[in-house]
Amino acid sequence: MDKLHKAIDKRDSLVCLGLDPDPELMPDIGILEFNKAIIDATCDLVGAYKANLAFYEAAGIDGLTALMKTVEYIPEDIPIIGDAKRGDIGNTARHYAKAIFETLGFDSVTVNPYLGYDAVEPFLSYHDKGVFLLCRTSNSGAADFQSLSCLSPDSCEQKPLFAVVAQKAKEWNKHGNMGLVAGATYPEELKLIRMICPDMMLLIPGIGAQEGDLARAIHCTMPAKGQRAIFASSRRILYASKGHDFAQAAREAAGQLRTNINSILNSD
Amino acid sequence: MDKLHKAIDKRDSLVCLGLDPDPELMPDIGILEFNKAIIDATCDLVGAYKANLAFYEAAGIDGLTALMKTVEYIPEDIPIIGDAKRGDIGNTARHYAKAIFETLGFDSVTVNPYLGYDAVEPFLSYHDKGVFLLCRTSNSGAADFQSLSCLSPDSCEQKPLFAVVAQKAKEWNKHGNMGLVAGATYPEELKLIRMICPDMMLLIPGIGAQEGDLARAIHCTMPAKGQRAIFASSRRILYASKGHDFAQAAREAAGQLRTNINSILNSD
Repeated sequence: MDKLHKAIDKRDSLVCLGLDPDPELMPDIGILEFNKAIIDATCDLVGAYKANLAFYEAAGIDGLTALMKTVEYIPEDIPIIGDAKRGDIGNTARHYAKAIFETLGFDSVTVNPYLGYDAVEPFLSYHDKGVFLLCRTSNSGAADFQSLSCLSPDSCEQKPLFAVVAQKAKEWNKHGNMGLVAGATYPEELKLIRMICPDMMLLIPGIGAQEGDLARAIHCTMPAKGQRAIFASSRRILYASKGHDFAQAAREAAGQLRTNINSILNSD
Repeated sequence: MDKLHKAIDKRDSLVCLGLDPDPELMPDIGILEFNKAIIDATCDLVGAYKANLAFYEAAGIDGLTALMKTVEYIPEDIPIIGDAKRGDIGNTARHYAKAIFETLGFDSVTVNPYLGYDAVEPFLSYHDKGVFLLCRTSNSGAADFQSLSCLSPDSCEQKPLFAVVAQKAKEWNKHGNMGLVAGATYPEELKLIRMICPDMMLLIPGIGAQEGDLARAIHCTMPAKGQRAIFASSRRILYASKGHDFAQAAREAAGQLRTNINSILNSD
């Protein structure tokens, strides 16, 4: 988390650029070549990178090789989040944590809460690594379970499931290395999460291709000084142009997002 | 699911053997060599294999290569489940589904329900592949969220979250290619899940190293004729011996589990 705060400060940027190489959208070059061009073009403009493992896994051995080389290629002082959304029982979770933090070399990871504490703890036990727990995701199906009204275990109140998850995350964050994932597409939920966890770093997807309202998301997640959130965007930046100028177009889109976020923050 | 039923019938076995190569427990040989020896020793005794991706991912490129060759090596008529517990928004879930079903060649997959329908649908849309949705997992942390009492969306009743998940799975199972994961360690929960989904294939972990009660799990999941569940065991079988006789010991352990299950079924 220190590394993340420093990278944000140095580049004055709350942009988290998702490196999600989609063969249907990217130019006709290799994944590693594509990522290197994007990183070269954006590394002075972003506070963090994020790689969604699905895109690399779909490409098999070549994808995994490109992912490992991409993680190595990213400048030392910019954190990279392994957007893996893993969740498994303790014994298995230890192997996932090893895969993400040691084999792949990520600085942090996204984890699914459904399996409970013993599925999250093996990631948290790497005290120098970050863990972003899924809380309220940005997709439409999120409401199926995350918004169910639950009887909270520590009170007699009914609360939506995601609020119980946020409350648990606060309890589990003993080493200060935990954050939450909450989609920009649900601002009221963002507000509630920020109330429950006033100090936690938030990772906010859903402002790009998913059309969440950036200004509302900023106001909901950073109502007070010192509160921080990073805003993940992938497709809108990576595929700003499909032509040879894709890297330059990505630079412009990332710079524009940085400017937009900072303008909204500074106008408050 | 047809392939699974046929493999179960042919081998008279409800054993699902988990191929989870753990470097701390396995003999000092390569993953692929280990898996091949285990498969050779057990392929007439099991109804399905299951590979937990964490163990392969932790081993990097070598692990992924061994996984792909393992999937190829398994006899054509035995289904292999990719125990990946994936869950991500629709666009990303499509890439995970491609990775599991096309790149890796699994017959079925385990999926996490937390993100809701659009995270599950891309897997279900492969009509010739199976999808086991996590419902009530076998670990102790499962109670953190899965057992929370929720206001069910289709009634005014309070139900545990996992029961809402089971109900949704029933609705989502339009192509008959869905099953549920429910741990043997929680027999009362198994009973409730079986009541909600009387016809669904259940994948039951937790009978081996996790010490769930096999007889109770069988009675809870197969109270009526025609109902089916497969029982996953990994460590108890794979690491029955640490010596050179590991494959023979695995054969004996797998055979013993098959016999135990069938004896309990036949004594009813």
